[in-house]
Amino acid sequence: VILPPLTRHLGLDELQAAAAAVLPVGSAEFLETGARGELTVRANVAAWSSWWLRPRVLVDVAEVSTASTVLDLPVRVPILVAPMSLQRVAHPDGESGVARAVAAREGLMIVSMGTSTPIEELAAILGRRWWMQLYLLSDRDLTASIARRAASLGAGALVLTVDAPRVGTQSRPRDGFRYPDGVSDVLVDPTAWTIGSDRRLTWDEVHWLQDQVDIPVILKGILHPDDAARAADDGVRAIVVSNHGGRVLDGTLPTALALPAVTEAVGGRLEVYVDGGIRRGADVLRALALGARAVLLGRPVLWGLALGGSEGAGEVLDLLAEELDTDAALCGVADVAQVPHDLVERI
Amino acid sequence: VILPPLTRHLGLDELQAAAAAVLPVGSAEFLETGARGELTVRANVAAWSSWWLRPRVLVDVAEVSTASTVLDLPVRVPILVAPMSLQRVAHPDGESGVARAVAAREGLMIVSMGTSTPIEELAAILGRRWWMQLYLLSDRDLTASIARRAASLGAGALVLTVDAPRVGTQSRPRDGFRYPDGVSDVLVDPTAWTIGSDRRLTWDEVHWLQDQVDIPVILKGILHPDDAARAADDGVRAIVVSNHGGRVLDGTLPTALALPAVTEAVGGRLEVYVDGGIRRGADVLRALALGARAVLLGRPVLWGLALGGSEGAGEVLDLLAEELDTDAALCGVADVAQVPHDLVERI
Amino acid sequence: VILPPLTRHLGLDELQAAAAAVLPVGSAEFLETGARGELTVRANVAAWSSWWLRPRVLVDVAEVSTASTVLDLPVRVPILVAPMSLQRVAHPDGESGVARAVAAREGLMIVSMGTSTPIEELAAILGRRWWMQLYLLSDRDLTASIARRAASLGAGALVLTVDAPRVGTQSRPRDGFRYPDGVSDVLVDPTAWTIGSDRRLTWDEVHWLQDQVDIPVILKGILHPDDAARAADDGVRAIVVSNHGGRVLDGTLPTALALPAVTEAVGGRLEVYVDGGIRRGADVLRALALGARAVLLGRPVLWGLALGGSEGAGEVLDLLAEELDTDAALCGVADVAQVPHDLVERI
Amino acid sequence: VILPPLTRHLGLDELQAAAAAVLPVGSAEFLETGARGELTVRANVAAWSSWWLRPRVLVDVAEVSTASTVLDLPVRVPILVAPMSLQRVAHPDGESGVARAVAAREGLMIVSMGTSTPIEELAAILGRRWWMQLYLLSDRDLTASIARRAASLGAGALVLTVDAPRVGTQSRPRDGFRYPDGVSDVLVDPTAWTIGSDRRLTWDEVHWLQDQVDIPVILKGILHPDDAARAADDGVRAIVVSNHGGRVLDGTLPTALALPAVTEAVGGRLEVYVDGGIRRGADVLRALALGARAVLLGRPVLWGLALGGSEGAGEVLDLLAEELDTDAALCGVADVAQVPHDLVERI
Repeated sequence: VILPPLTRHLGLDELQAAAAAVLPVGSAEFLETGARGELTVRANVAAWSSWWLRPRVLVDVAEVSTASTVLDLPVRVPILVAPMSLQRVAHPDGESGVARAVAAREGLMIVSMGTSTPIEELAAILGRRWWMQLYLLSDRDLTASIARRAASLGAGALVLTVDAPRVGTQSRPRDGFRYPDGVSDVLVDPTAWTIGSDRRLTWDEVHWLQDQVDIPVILKGILHPDDAARAADDGVRAIVVSNHGGRVLDGTLPTALALPAVTEAVGGRLEVYVDGGIRRGADVLRALALGARAVLLGRPVLWGLALGGSEGAGEVLDLLAEELDTDAALCGVADVAQVPHDLVERI
Repeated sequence: VILPPLTRHLGLDELQAAAAAVLPVGSAEFLETGARGELTVRANVAAWSSWWLRPRVLVDVAEVSTASTVLDLPVRVPILVAPMSLQRVAHPDGESGVARAVAAREGLMIVSMGTSTPIEELAAILGRRWWMQLYLLSDRDLTASIARRAASLGAGALVLTVDAPRVGTQSRPRDGFRYPDGVSDVLVDPTAWTIGSDRRLTWDEVHWLQDQVDIPVILKGILHPDDAARAADDGVRAIVVSNHGGRVLDGTLPTALALPAVTEAVGGRLEVYVDGGIRRGADVLRALALGARAVLLGRPVLWGLALGGSEGAGEVLDLLAEELDTDAALCGVADVAQVPHDLVERI
Repeated sequence: VILPPLTRHLGLDELQAAAAAVLPVGSAEFLETGARGELTVRANVAAWSSWWLRPRVLVDVAEVSTASTVLDLPVRVPILVAPMSLQRVAHPDGESGVARAVAAREGLMIVSMGTSTPIEELAAILGRRWWMQLYLLSDRDLTASIARRAASLGAGALVLTVDAPRVGTQSRPRDGFRYPDGVSDVLVDPTAWTIGSDRRLTWDEVHWLQDQVDIPVILKGILHPDDAARAADDGVRAIVVSNHGGRVLDGTLPTALALPAVTEAVGGRLEVYVDGGIRRGADVLRALALGARAVLLGRPVLWGLALGGSEGAGEVLDLLAEELDTDAALCGVADVAQVPHDLVERI
Repeated sequence: VILPPLTRHLGLDELQAAAAAVLPVGSAEFLETGARGELTVRANVAAWSSWWLRPRVLVDVAEVSTASTVLDLPVRVPILVAPMSLQRVAHPDGESGVARAVAAREGLMIVSMGTSTPIEELAAILGRRWWMQLYLLSDRDLTASIARRAASLGAGALVLTVDAPRVGTQSRPRDGFRYPDGVSDVLVDPTAWTIGSDRRLTWDEVHWLQDQVDIPVILKGILHPDDAARAADDGVRAIVVSNHGGRVLDGTLPTALALPAVTEAVGGRLEVYVDGGIRRGADVLRALALGARAVLLGRPVLWGLALGGSEGAGEVLDLLAEELDTDAALCGVADVAQVPHDLVERI
């Protein structure tokens, strides 16, 4: 155990301040800041708790199965690592460290297009346990080449971020932020980060991207049920209900409140994942009760990474998995792939 | 009068800090802590006040009857003592002290399986005024023998805890907690506390336990109306709507909000009791208005015990009974066994 | 102008602390305390503001009429002085001072049975501008004699308090409270304050009291619409929606939330007044919009009395009347006897 | 850039304290204070955020059009400058400075009847980019002459304030407020500010005013849908949903909550603008989603003016326009004249 001991009682939230304490101010802000007034950053976390649990009892929970699959890939727990750029800012172990933690736990890592580690190195660690996140760059050739390179390295899917046609504005200055020595984007030269410089990102571009590869293209950043339904109509196999962790557009609906209408709209025609504010095993249960198939965990993984490198990131994943296992049992849920809708209620 | 004088004005909540001040830190935390973030510990208390009272007037309340029965046993007020382990941690009087307070007031004590006083000693004090709480231990023989022993000693019912198939995780460390000298579990050896090590606790086990004894088996820890309806269908005679005082699973619905759906689901086919966050006589009225037949009082009894031994525990019971008597009259309720549903409203 | 100058900007609430500062602690607590946890004391004030105003415009409000009648008595503004005992505790001017302020403003004073000034003295000041509040004492003869004495002195109505079949318990100690020299109950000897010692106070007793006098008996302390409807059925001419200022039963519905169901239930068959937490002219408008014919003002009158004797009490009444006049105009209400229901909304 | 640098991250709210720091106390209070308890001042700001955004994705937002028209006048962004008196109190640049900022940005300024700069000077700067706000003075001839003078100078509309038949009472004292040297009302002599001394302001007076000029008369200060419908019935071409920034009547519904019923009632028959508490580009989007055609920006313009004169006021307008452009794109809104209703939700 490398993380501070209290965390096993107080949960992941306690790691936030601990991580900030070991990082330069600019790096900590790079991890934490959200768009403008950070209403959504805070609301994301709070909204999960607004769903109260109403457990079932006298169910056989001698063995709880937390196993699930995402796009047919078996995972030990339905907790994926969200795409986050420049992980070597948090710790020299960076993306490799997170990848080792994920691989050892039979999880899945979504590698950010802004990775500070070559994807060949990550693919060697992760095997098939990774997906590749992409923005649609103005340079379509570069976008396509990264997509094909990831596919050829074994990525199981592309995760196209659709909620950031422009870069949002963080509320706190990042003036103190400097790339640590030797840390840089390795896939995209800083001068090529003209995301959407023509800024056209429509369903046509989704189809274009899908045409570049044989692996599925997942859409990340959907909040409106009509967009979810359109994705299902278009044959998209999975979407991520996300507001980009509150980093792009402030004031968006917290994902815990957006999720139910989305899962209802798609009616099981595609897989729905969700991220934003997940801090407790019970939050994972809430997400599953509301129709998600898995959650993406973001900032807490970097807190663990900052505090303990690969081992710290792994302990964060373990802690959440243990909470999920225990709280599932206490909710009378023997199989987290079968969480009933009426486990949760806002009242 | 042994309790601090202000308590007669500010109510039981004021005793919490007073009790903590006279106990070692670890012992106070043993009494107070809840699971994880303690959302439910706090919500339990707050939820009762969210039900506003709408009193009736010009009713004859010259005499208020607070008398009721629980499973045909007459009690002077419908306030039972909840099962709590290791009461000698709070005060050397321990379970015997609470038992004396209960017997003198014609109440009912639910003795915890984790009692630090032999049940023979308690039975001698309580006569028929006690029920025996049980966990289903992995050691079924031990479980059955305790059940039969309690029945033979005059316990009126077994209270099977069904909401803790696993032990929850308290939010605050109990590292400071040491059993005071001479205090220990007397029914279950610490090594046998492998509650649910096979962790199978289903309706089959309820029936198995009922087969061991001639006294009724009550289920404690039901929040979902479907579980309550199933209990009624299976011939269970009483249930306790409870989230274990927020000590097992954090984020569960406060009992004051779970209760109405449960009482509606059972439609009078079994007796419903409730615990969690009861601090005022008016909270008892609220519970009765929402369909409960009685409440269980937990932590406040131990605060009184810590502050004044048996006499302190008794004063806590008296204080709540006096508040109930006065507030019933002020609500136009002449018989607390007949509290109308429309006495309370959330608005 | 005798009151602190800021009050003309910040409203009556500002007077509370100012009054407490000029009184002995016990006297200030005697004025302010409520039952138990004082939930209702606070909620009474807050609930009025939960009704937002939706003004009408382009109405002719060149002249606003605030005049109304209560039981056919014309009053300049529909703001009556609530019955409050022992007003000489607040200031030597006591009830006489309040009476002079009321008479000069063509208002109405409800004289408390616990008056510290003889009612003959008050009647001489008030003429017909007073009603007599009564509790039903165990000593029925005394009750009847006070009722008849008040009627013969010109009281326009009896106001029977029906929400205190027992005395509530104030949350803060009154140990510091001593009757100031020369202050005492003048109608009821302290030994006779055995309110409801037989505690039978039902509709029969209402009828009995009505049989003692030729003036109407008003019921004060109704919150439930069924009780209001029963009053109308029984020929009662007016009721006061009240929770006794939160001094008797804590946790009762704030009057601003109880009022709408009551006025709907009586459908204009009797006059409805309301008290509890009125602090602003706009609160009076809200009460009228919700169906009340007038409000009773309590504690703020005593704050004014404490700070400036009769003149101070009068300034409080003036301040609220001025706010009512101004805010009525700003709401497009030319006649406060005709406030439309849709002026207010909870949203 | 003349404004403090952090504002580009934290938004306009940050300017409030900065502006207060550079002004005399009385002047700052003149800008900020609201009526009585300032409930509405605060609620106006908070209510916008209670509408969560539910963005659409995969829309072509390569180019966002913020252009719109108000009464057929093209504006670059649908953000108008609200009428505010005595702008030279904030900065010597005063109304001229604001006018230069507005003209340079192809916006629209509503000039207050309480202007401290002659309207001839403003008309010379603004061309047709201004409307003239009026109160109905008791001196009808003066009112009519100002109206005609404005029309002849090129004002595109008269904006009649209908929500202030009387002057409200600010909560904080303005005793410290003195007109800075050389600052005064230039249209209305202080002795003529007997707004509504006969206080008759009805639909008749609206028609009378309309008869004085050939430009449209807009009504500012409507909150009730029935008044909005009446305006449409009477041929009024535009209204402003406003509670006068909370400066006149405290407790009025926040405009963000009043707006939906108004736009529904008029069904597109007239143009609806809204003011009160707009601080973010996303607030503008929310207003447009709820059916407004444009917003009026008030206090923030004066904060910018106080901090940087004309240039500061212009930067405030730029900042809000930039936020609107970015957040529209992030919401999937390519044309702010076409914001779908379901972009926002209270949940």
